[in-house]
Amino acid sequence: MRIRENELVQKISGSVAQRRISGQLRLGAGDDTALFEPRPGYELILTCDWFLEGTHFLRDKHPPDSVGWKCLARALSDVAAMGGIPRCFLLSLALPLSLAGRWLEEFLTGLRRASRRFGCALAGGDTTRSRQILINVTVAGEVKLGRAVLRSGAHSGDVVYVSGRLGEAELGLQTLKRNKRGARSKDLRLKKHLYPEARIALGQWLAEKHVASSMMDLSDGLSTDLPRLCAASGVGARIHAASIPAPLISSRRGLGTIDPLQLALHGGDDYELLFTVRPNRTKSLPRSFQGIPLTPIGVITSRKQVVLVKESGRGHRFESGGWDPFELR
Amino acid sequence: MRIRENELVQKISGSVAQRRISGQLRLGAGDDTALFEPRPGYELILTCDWFLEGTHFLRDKHPPDSVGWKCLARALSDVAAMGGIPRCFLLSLALPLSLAGRWLEEFLTGLRRASRRFGCALAGGDTTRSRQILINVTVAGEVKLGRAVLRSGAHSGDVVYVSGRLGEAELGLQTLKRNKRGARSKDLRLKKHLYPEARIALGQWLAEKHVASSMMDLSDGLSTDLPRLCAASGVGARIHAASIPAPLISSRRGLGTIDPLQLALHGGDDYELLFTVRPNRTKSLPRSFQGIPLTPIGVITSRKQVVLVKESGRGHRFESGGWDPFELR
Repeated sequence: MRIRENELVQKISGSVAQRRISGQLRLGAGDDTALFEPRPGYELILTCDWFLEGTHFLRDKHPPDSVGWKCLARALSDVAAMGGIPRCFLLSLALPLSLAGRWLEEFLTGLRRASRRFGCALAGGDTTRSRQILINVTVAGEVKLGRAVLRSGAHSGDVVYVSGRLGEAELGLQTLKRNKRGARSKDLRLKKHLYPEARIALGQWLAEKHVASSMMDLSDGLSTDLPRLCAASGVGARIHAASIPAPLISSRRGLGTIDPLQLALHGGDDYELLFTVRPNRTKSLPRSFQGIPLTPIGVITSRKQVVLVKESGRGHRFESGGWDPFELR
Repeated sequence: MRIRENELVQKISGSVAQRRISGQLRLGAGDDTALFEPRPGYELILTCDWFLEGTHFLRDKHPPDSVGWKCLARALSDVAAMGGIPRCFLLSLALPLSLAGRWLEEFLTGLRRASRRFGCALAGGDTTRSRQILINVTVAGEVKLGRAVLRSGAHSGDVVYVSGRLGEAELGLQTLKRNKRGARSKDLRLKKHLYPEARIALGQWLAEKHVASSMMDLSDGLSTDLPRLCAASGVGARIHAASIPAPLISSRRGLGTIDPLQLALHGGDDYELLFTVRPNRTKSLPRSFQGIPLTPIGVITSRKQVVLVKESGRGHRFESGGWDPFELR
C-alpha cells in the first residue's frame, strides 16, 4: 500500500472533524496551524500527553478503537483536573505504513467517538511514518479567569477526596494481559482500562462552585500522584486505607492473589480526580456527582509526610509504587 | 543511572524556563496543564510538530544542542507562516535512560537558546522513556483577529515569493551524512541544517502590512509545498527555474555532481516562507527584510497546474520530489 502524507491528513481530518465546528475554532486541520478565538474573561488551558506503543499500550492486545479513544481521553483528563472546558485538540500520529488501512480506520472511529463524547474538535496535528505507533495529543481548553484549580491549593485540615473507584483500570490491564486472544471491546471488566472517562463535568462543577481547594487527575496511581499534590501545596496527608474505594473483586474471577488495596494505591490509568475540600465546604459536596461516587479518604496535614493508616490503626509511610516510566519494574 | 520522572521534569523546567515569564503565562511546567491568558482582539495559534530520531535526525550525526534548537525552531516556523507571534510551547520528550545525563543537558542548552531567541517560553509538556528519542513540540501563539495569512488566499496574477535561499539545509544534510565524524556545531556550511531560523519577524511584517495574500513555510521542499498552497487556494502557478534562489556551491567543495536547482526544488527543512503578493502590492515589498532576500520566482495562474519554466523557455509539470515520510526513497 502506498499513501502520501497529504492523503493521510485528509483521511484523518475527514474522519474526525466535526461537521458543525464550534464557532470559536476558525480553521481546523489543513493549514500551517489551527486558529482559535478565546472567549473574553477566560484563560487558555494547554496540555499534551504521550501515548506510545509498548509503553502505554500493546498493538496485539489493545483494540485500535481503544487506542483512539484513550489517547484523547487521557489528555482531556488533565483539562478536567483544572476545572476546564475542552475546546479542540491536535493529533500527532506516527505509524507504520502497514497500519494506515484498517488499523487507522478503527483508531479514528475510537478517536471520533471520544471527540464527540467530550465536545473536543480536531484542530490539526502532524503525521509521519515510524516503526512503532507513536501518538501525542495536545488539548486546548478554557477556564474562567481565576477559577482554575491548581495542585498547590491544599491546606492543613482540608479533606482529601477521590472520584470513582481506584484500581479498576489496573485490574482491567492485568485481565487483558492474561487474555491470550487480546481484548474484546465489549468486555465490561476492561471498560475502565480501554475506554476511560475524563471527569470533565465533575472537574468543572468543583471549580465553578469553588468546592475544590486543589485538584489533579490520577494517572500514575494514588501512591505517586498524592505525594505530587502534597509537594506542590507544601503539605502532607493522612490517608485511611479502609476508606479508599478499591475494586470489587468477585472470587469467581480467578484473580485470587490480587489485593484490591494494592490495585487502588498503585494502579495507574484511573483518570479519576483527586481533590481537597476545606472542612467548612465538605457539607456542600454530594456523595456522588452524576453517578460518580465522591469519597473522602483522609485529611491534609501540615507535617510534610504522606501517611497511610492501615486498619490496625498504625500509620505507614506512603510508598510510592505507581507508574513511573523511568523505573525498571 | 536512575532518574525519576519528577526529577526529569524539574531538570527540564529548571533549565529552560525563563526567569522572567511573560505576564500572560500564569503557570508553567509542574501542574496538570499550562494556563495562558490570551490578549483581547487576538486569535490563538496552535501547532505541533514531530521530531523523531531516525526520521528527522540521527543520534550519531546531529549534535544534541542542534536537536534541541531545531525541534522548537521548526514548530515556530508554522507560527511564522501564519504571521503570528509565538508565546509558549509544550515539550513532549521520550528518551532512553542512558541519554538522561549529558545528552539531555546539551539538548536543553539548544532548546533554551531557541526559546530565548524566538521569545517563546516553556509552559509544560510530558516525559516518558523510550528506546529512541521521540520529540513532539506544541507551540501556542497569537495573531490579531483577521490578520492570519492562510494558505488559501492566493489569486491568479499574484506574484510568488520565497524568503532566503532554498536547498541550503539539504546541502548541509548531505555534507553531514558524508562526514564520518558527525557534525561540528560551528561548521558554517551546516548552520542552516542544524540551527534553522524561524522567520517570525518577516511573517509578522507580511501579515501586519497586509502584503501577503497567502503564505506557508517551506518544510518539505518547494516542489511539495507549492502544490499544497496552490491546492488550498484552488489555483496553479508558473515558476521560473532561473529565478529560484539556489545554493551557491563552490567547486572546491567536492560536491561536483550536485545540481543546485534540484536542491532548491526538492530539499526539505528550509523553514523559509513561501508567499504570494497581489500585483499592485509588489512595489511595497523590499528586496530584502532584515538581511533576508525576498525573491519573486513566478506567478499564480487560474489554470490548476504548477509549471516549472526552464531556462530553455519550455514549461514542465512540477514533479513533487520533496520530503514525504510515507514515500520510500
